[in-house]
Amino acid sequence: MPSGVPGVVPADGLTTRQRRQRPLLIIHTGDGKGKSTAAFGLALRGWNQGWSVGIFQFVKSARWRIGEQTALESLGELHNATGRGGSIEWHKMGAGWSWSRKMGTDDDHAAAAAEGWQEIKRRLAQEKHTLYVLDEFTYPINWGWVDIDDVIDTLTARSGYQHVIITGRRADPRLVEAAQLVTEMSKIKHPFDDGQKGQRGIEW
Amino acid sequence: MPSGVPGVVPADGLTTRQRRQRPLLIIHTGDGKGKSTAAFGLALRGWNQGWSVGIFQFVKSARWRIGEQTALESLGELHNATGRGGSIEWHKMGAGWSWSRKMGTDDDHAAAAAEGWQEIKRRLAQEKHTLYVLDEFTYPINWGWVDIDDVIDTLTARSGYQHVIITGRRADPRLVEAAQLVTEMSKIKHPFDDGQKGQRGIEW
Repeated sequence: MPSGVPGVVPADGLTTRQRRQRPLLIIHTGDGKGKSTAAFGLALRGWNQGWSVGIFQFVKSARWRIGEQTALESLGELHNATGRGGSIEWHKMGAGWSWSRKMGTDDDHAAAAAEGWQEIKRRLAQEKHTLYVLDEFTYPINWGWVDIDDVIDTLTARSGYQHVIITGRRADPRLVEAAQLVTEMSKIKHPFDDGQKGQRGIEW
Repeated sequence: MPSGVPGVVPADGLTTRQRRQRPLLIIHTGDGKGKSTAAFGLALRGWNQGWSVGIFQFVKSARWRIGEQTALESLGELHNATGRGGSIEWHKMGAGWSWSRKMGTDDDHAAAAAEGWQEIKRRLAQEKHTLYVLDEFTYPINWGWVDIDDVIDTLTARSGYQHVIITGRRADPRLVEAAQLVTEMSKIKHPFDDGQKGQRGIEW
């Protein structure tokens, strides 16, 4: 990790404290593993800060309950019971659709994704959470199910102190342009290449 | 995420079940963010599987307690109290040294890192954990504080079902060669470039 010392001091008239408190749009993209996993890792940090964390799964949701959901929801229950950490909500946006698109028609999937995005817009307007994880949100954008201009306008104009993380392959260049922190995860080696099957604890 | 269907079925005579149960050596490297965070995210999955998870921080350790430690240790306490999930241990290997190397001499740091690695070897021999996160372990290797040949030999020969994740920049090519899953995190954009300071919940 970098040491935290910025290379440039901007002439924006802000104090260090103000500059420390800037809501970020964060993108995890690329073909490698770790995009979602790193976003859920950031949710751990947010929980520890006492933040309200909202996680919104856009694609994988319907097929299985991943381990991170159970673990993060357990931390949310701990918060509710003891006041430690922050609150965690986990929502599946459009539970009837998935990678394989086996369930429902494409129109159903598109409508569910669009409604999911409307719900996130409402929450942003209410400043409901401090951290939003929009997991695999690049896909409904790239499929045209959610309007990219609306996404950019909404995120750029959002009020208050709200961090937003978007994960998924092939992030739209306009999304990258609007973001402050963008990391690409690239595959150097993957066991699937050698015929290894996915396994519990690693893939889910 | 890929759908989990391997492109090649290997002629190794293994059943699907056997092929699903292979301990992995995983590397998260590159100059971007998310290497450690994604490893801690995998710890969430391991916890949910009921695994014994051991996390060993090799560099950042002494400077601050990061949010993930508090959050993951809370899940470990939940396991101890209720039996849910798995156990989580978090160890700082050589607590007297850090990025800035302000405390102690280089010799102290090197000895602490070497002793940390010896402890991990003992645990691997005992099959103490199912998942080991060796956070920022590439640095003591690259500084020559831990012998790379010993690391490769130990990890290659480890017994049982033990996953090992190593994070850090500039992973040694021999480490990459020995691993089954290697992801590179690259910086596309980082707020430090614009003079933004590190902020709570994001950097720690």
